[in-house]
Order: sequence, then structure tokens, then C-alpha cells
Amino acid sequence: MSIQIPRLDSRNPDFSAQLEQLLAWHEAFDDNVHRTVVEILKSVRREGDAAVLDYTRRFDRLEAASVAELELDAARQELALATIPAEQRQALEAAAARIRTYAEHQKLTSWEYRDERGNRLGQKITPLDRVGLYVPGGKAAYPSSVLMNAIPARVAGVGELVMTVPTPDGEINDLVLAAARIAGVDRIFRIGGAQAVAALAYGTETIPQVNKIVGPGNIYVATAKKLVFGQVGIDMIAGPSEILIIADGSTDPDWIAMDLFSQAEHDEDAQAILLCPDPAYLDRVAASIEKLLPTLERREVIAASLQKRGALIQVQNLQEACAIANRIAPEHLELSVAEPEALLLEIRHAGAVFMGPYTAEALGDYCAGPNHVLPTSGTARFSSPLGVYDFQKRTSVIECTEDGASPLAETAKVLAEGEGLTAHARSAGYRIRHET
Amino acid sequence: MSIQIPRLDSRNPDFSAQLEQLLAWHEAFDDNVHRTVVEILKSVRREGDAAVLDYTRRFDRLEAASVAELELDAARQELALATIPAEQRQALEAAAARIRTYAEHQKLTSWEYRDERGNRLGQKITPLDRVGLYVPGGKAAYPSSVLMNAIPARVAGVGELVMTVPTPDGEINDLVLAAARIAGVDRIFRIGGAQAVAALAYGTETIPQVNKIVGPGNIYVATAKKLVFGQVGIDMIAGPSEILIIADGSTDPDWIAMDLFSQAEHDEDAQAILLCPDPAYLDRVAASIEKLLPTLERREVIAASLQKRGALIQVQNLQEACAIANRIAPEHLELSVAEPEALLLEIRHAGAVFMGPYTAEALGDYCAGPNHVLPTSGTARFSSPLGVYDFQKRTSVIECTEDGASPLAETAKVLAEGEGLTAHARSAGYRIRHET
Repeated sequence: MSIQIPRLDSRNPDFSAQLEQLLAWHEAFDDNVHRTVVEILKSVRREGDAAVLDYTRRFDRLEAASVAELELDAARQELALATIPAEQRQALEAAAARIRTYAEHQKLTSWEYRDERGNRLGQKITPLDRVGLYVPGGKAAYPSSVLMNAIPARVAGVGELVMTVPTPDGEINDLVLAAARIAGVDRIFRIGGAQAVAALAYGTETIPQVNKIVGPGNIYVATAKKLVFGQVGIDMIAGPSEILIIADGSTDPDWIAMDLFSQAEHDEDAQAILLCPDPAYLDRVAASIEKLLPTLERREVIAASLQKRGALIQVQNLQEACAIANRIAPEHLELSVAEPEALLLEIRHAGAVFMGPYTAEALGDYCAGPNHVLPTSGTARFSSPLGVYDFQKRTSVIECTEDGASPLAETAKVLAEGEGLTAHARSAGYRIRHET
Repeated sequence: MSIQIPRLDSRNPDFSAQLEQLLAWHEAFDDNVHRTVVEILKSVRREGDAAVLDYTRRFDRLEAASVAELELDAARQELALATIPAEQRQALEAAAARIRTYAEHQKLTSWEYRDERGNRLGQKITPLDRVGLYVPGGKAAYPSSVLMNAIPARVAGVGELVMTVPTPDGEINDLVLAAARIAGVDRIFRIGGAQAVAALAYGTETIPQVNKIVGPGNIYVATAKKLVFGQVGIDMIAGPSEILIIADGSTDPDWIAMDLFSQAEHDEDAQAILLCPDPAYLDRVAASIEKLLPTLERREVIAASLQKRGALIQVQNLQEACAIANRIAPEHLELSVAEPEALLLEIRHAGAVFMGPYTAEALGDYCAGPNHVLPTSGTARFSSPLGVYDFQKRTSVIECTEDGASPLAETAKVLAEGEGLTAHARSAGYRIRHET
């Protein structure tokens, strides 16, 4: 099995255009999907449980007399936890503990201060009342994703966490269920697709309405989430997963090859790129790729991804590599160099940075602590990893004293009059001393 | 001028349905607007400056030979500052100083810790590189909005702040320009509409591409922002403005009437609701409304808003009022009561809370310090006021030591194998000691 992974050179006058083409990713808009999803949302909103049962019968080939029958209760969750191998249970618990510890550092807290006139200004933090967690079924059912989405919500203090997971043909994934139990999910319904998103967004007789929906899903789920946004909050819609590795040549090339594979094995659209100033090292990594690829279970997917969207790029130096990283704003950035600290100072845009040769992205994917839900497709330029702060919100608090209100009211009055908003001006005017 | 503002009673068995109907707000989707905006986005993306000039000529009746001609430079901004009345300049500066002080409290800072094996875990905060600020022209040109959008970005440390403001028929609003100067906007272009959003999102020969676009606008601007989302970040799309007042009857009813007016004067869709346990007090407020309405410049808009979307609601007690407030999740909540602190403890969902009779919403709208860009239409259930944090983003940082990586790699390997991701498992496996 031979593989042609593109080689680029930053000194090439066409490099900028080549890079742009390499990064280009346009989300497909499928009008049929859109129409189907709109129809499902409408039905569930109108008919509630009955529509959910009907779609679950049709799409998941799962019969149930009521939605209540589709709930997996605490006893069933405990059973899953008891069923899975001890090694997996311990791994899930170890990962959960680390994710929780990291999440605790993210918690926002309320604050306030008083100005010189005794006016009180502050920001009050409250958790969301209820959150919906979408978990895909079938082959993309990842227990790690349950931990990463549920634990920050729990740490934020969310009142109730409702999970939906489709079980096509009735098949239940015990590893996913065990992860949900460990993460502290409150209720689990065996439903999926756009109908699950609709049920969470609007509520049905049995499924409680939530305030925000998080979690990955296929194109139907993503489309449904976009359409219910506004009614409820949603997390980011993820594009293909990406890794960018900056190497100085000091890491075993087999390690780099495997780190690239670990991204590429997700799917054919996944993107794995290596930047290095040393062409001989790029050759060694290419040789490792050739050598190791045939030994991988998911070699077909990996080869397709690396050929279509991967690249080995020779750069002039590590500073240029950082500049290219900032241009790409990658989801995952490995600094596989002897002195990663110096490079970190240069990095402005990345979802997560993995420093030094021992920090494989895979450790972060599962258990280092930080979230694996990260901004993709360059959105790290303006957005952040999923975190506790996504399950908390802020309320401004203002309390003016009689004495303190007066000068503010004078300022507000002048500005309101300047904007022609005279009711604002008079409302403020009432709070000026000696004026009525 | 007589006015029929709806009166409701929470003891009415139909109250819940009545309240739901009162709150119902469905954003109109206009297919023509959508198509027009898609066309404008495409043209600007393809033709850059030429398209921007063409649309500006067509929609704003403003001729220019180049987009560079449409830039208002520092000298022109300084001129605006020198031109406006001293009282307005002082008011803008006073407001800006307070908004800045409050914003400083919101700044996120980087943090990190080490686990028991020396692994380093953290979160690095960086400001956005470049932000676009949309400012409407014509009658909705609000200098206060320039301060509220620009100052948090500046405090966040955003590299460059690019503002667009249409000047239909060439008319420049000096108050808006002065506010931009005070807030520290870097560049200002006299363009507006979907073409301005497109120019900021994609960049043109003259207008630099930004990473996030904030600021209010009409339906064309809002539609364009939704469509470019993903390419760039955007703030929330605002619905009609709302105030909810909880009164215990201790505030001068004229003050309450004027506070309701100050919301209703925005537009006919604005919503102003009063909750009070004392029916006699509701009568007194109704009388104040009758008395004061004819004296207001914007009485037509106010009357339409109060009749269509306003309400005076008799509740059983202040605790029930808080429960109703949480159900509404209002943009602005005035607690016009003698003991607001007790009620604040009950409030979970609101954009901003104004405590006690002296804290008129108008003070917060202009100069108290907190942002006046707040979640509307019940979205305070899951979202927050605009703040410095909207112009900063987080990057996870992980650095494993050789010793620290090993146990994490063991956990990751077990979980990756459980998920069938064997390249992940082997990538982790390389970092386990004594395994190759």
C-alpha cells in the first residue's frame, strides 16, 4: 500500500495559494436534508411524543408503545457500568476525574464593586436550568464524547442533564451508557436524529424542554441544531477534525506519523498537516508513514484523508511555522519540538496546543483534562473550546443609590436627548436630584 | 389620547396561555430579503471594492471613485469631536470611562496548573486579531451603541477595530463619529447594509477582513450576519427590546410609567410589562400612563407598543413575580421595590437587573457601566450580555512530562481501543514507558 501525501515548500511563490486550497472546506448545503429536517421539526413540535415514536420506528426500526418506554433508567445505567470490562470502567473513571479537575478551573464566579458614590455594579453568574446532550448511535458512538460534553455542564451546576442516543435496531452501547452514568447524566432517551433535537428544543409530553443542546451528530442533527438555534442555545457545529504538527526534527518520526494517522483515521475529510524546516526529516516521516500505514486497521480511511487533505510542508524556520499555524488556526496543534515554550508565545490561534513530544493529541482526546470539543475550520480565530462557561451565563447587576444615581442620570439625559429618545431622557431625569 | 394597555391577573386559569401569547415573537423570514442578501454577499466576495462602490451608489445614493475615498480618517474624527456641543462630548467621555471601568472587570486571564506528575494543564487567553463594528445610519444611529460595542473590544486587546457606518445621501452623524473616536475605533468606512457585512467578512482590496462582526442593524444586516457566521464570528441577532418591571408599590407611579415608556419608545414591537401584587397601584400606574403619554414626543410609537405588546399584570406576591420573571427571562428587569436584594436571589434568567427605584433602565442604557447589548426574546436563559469575553478566546494548553505522559497514555489507549480508534491507541501507546 503506497501513499502520495502532498509535499509543499513555503518558499514556493505559489505556496500561499496552495495552502489556501489545501485548507478550503465548504460545508455542503443539501436542500433535501434541509426540507426533511424542517418537516421533522414541525411534526415533533405539533405532535410531540407521537411524532417522536413514529420517526424512531421509521428511522431506527425501534418499536415502543410510549416515549417513557424509551427511557433508560438509573438501574439500566448501573447495569451498563457493571457489565463493561473493569479496565474500561477504570479508564472512564480516571478520564472523568481529570476532565472534572480541569473543568473546575473554568468556573465563572459572580463579582461586584461599588463606585465612588456607592453605586453597585456587578455580574451575577447562573448555570443553565436544563441542557440536552446529543450522542450519536452506531459506529460514531464515543463514550469519551459523553464525558467531554456532560462533565463541564455538571461542574457548571446545570439543573438537569438530558441525553438522547439513538439505538438503531434496539442495540444499546453499554460503554456509552456507562460513560453517561459516570458523568452524572440525569435522564437518557433512546432517540436520535432531528427528532431528538426537536424533542429537546420544544419539549414533548415526556421529554423535557432544554435551554441548550450540545454534542456531535450527522448532517440531519447539525441542520436541526442550526434551525432550533435561538429557541435554545447550541454549541458550535463542527467541521472535519484537524491536526497541525510543528516539528523541529527531534521527535521519533514514527511518533509523528502515528499522530498524523490518529487524526486522519477519523474520516476522509479529516486534515493532518506537518510543518518542519528540515527536508530530510520530512523524508523520514514519509518513510514512517509508508512503513506503518499497512499495519493500521483504518488504513483505507487514513490513506484517503492524507492524500486528499494532508500535507508535509517544508518551512524556512520554526518562526515561519508559527506564522503558518496562526494563519491556519488549527483545532489541534502539536509543538513536537525540544523547546515548545518559545513557540507557544508566538501562537495566537489554536483550539488546543500539545507541547513537546510526549504530549500526543490522543492524550488530550481522552483524558489529559481539557475538552476535546474544539473549534474547527479556522474558527479558533474567534471561538473557544467547549467549557464550563458554555453552561453558565451572566446577568449584569446595577444598583444605584439616591446620591449615586443623580450624576449618572444627568449623563444619560444628555445622551438620550442627543439620540432623540426623550422618554429615556425623562426617565433618567426623574432620578436627578431637585428635578421632577 | 387614550390608551388600552392589557391588564392580566396571574390567578386567572388562562394566565399561563395569555402570558405565552403576550411573549410570542416570531422573527419574520423574508425570502426576498434572503435572496437579495445572498446576491450581495456573492458580488462583494467576487468583485470586492467595485461591488461595494456600486451598492453604496445604489442604496445610499453616495458617489465615490474608490473605497479609500469612503474612509473617514483620524482628522475627520477629531473634527467631529471638536464640532459637537461640549455637554455631549463630556457626557460621551463620562459614559466611556464608566463602560471601560466595568469592562476591565470582565477580562479573562490565562491560567495553568500542574498535576501530581508534573503535567502542565492550562488555558491561554488571546484577543481577536481584528473586529468589525457595524453601526446603522439614519435615525437609528446611536452613539451609545458605538461605545457599548467598541469599548469591550478595545479592553480585550483586539488588534484592530474597523467600523462601517452608512451615510445615506452623504450625511455624516458627528455624534456617532465622536463616539467612535472616544471609544478608540481604528478605521471607519462610510458603507452599510449587507455589502458592509460582506466586505468585513471576506475583505476587499481596501477593507480588511475581520474575525468577528458585532453591532445592530436592519433585517438585511441581520440576515447577512447570519449567513457569514462560520466564516467570521457574530454577536447575537437581537429581537425587539424588552423591559419587565417588578414593583411593590413603593415607587412613584410616574417613574414606573416613564420607565415603561422608555422601552416602548424604541419601536412598536418593543415590550414593556409591569408585575405588581397591588391592583390599586396598577391603577395608579395606568393613570400615570394616561397622564404622561400625551406629553411624549414618541407617543404614537409608545401607544402602539403598549397596546400591542405591553401588559400590567397583577400577581399574588413578589415571589410569584420572580417566578414569572424567570419564565420570561427578560432583557431588562427592574426590581422597583424597597428590598431588591431578596428578589435578586430568586432571579435566574435576565440580561440585566436594575435594583431599586433609583436605578432606571435608562441609566444602564447609557452610562452606568454594564453593556446595553443584552440577550432578548428569552435568550437570557442561555446567553449573556456582550462583554470583553466576546472579544477574547481560549486555547487549551497541555504539556506532559515523560513521566507524566505514561499513565495518561495507558488510559487513552484503553478508551481508544474501546472506540475502535486504533491509530489513537498506538499514538498514545508510544508514550507509555517500556512500550514501543
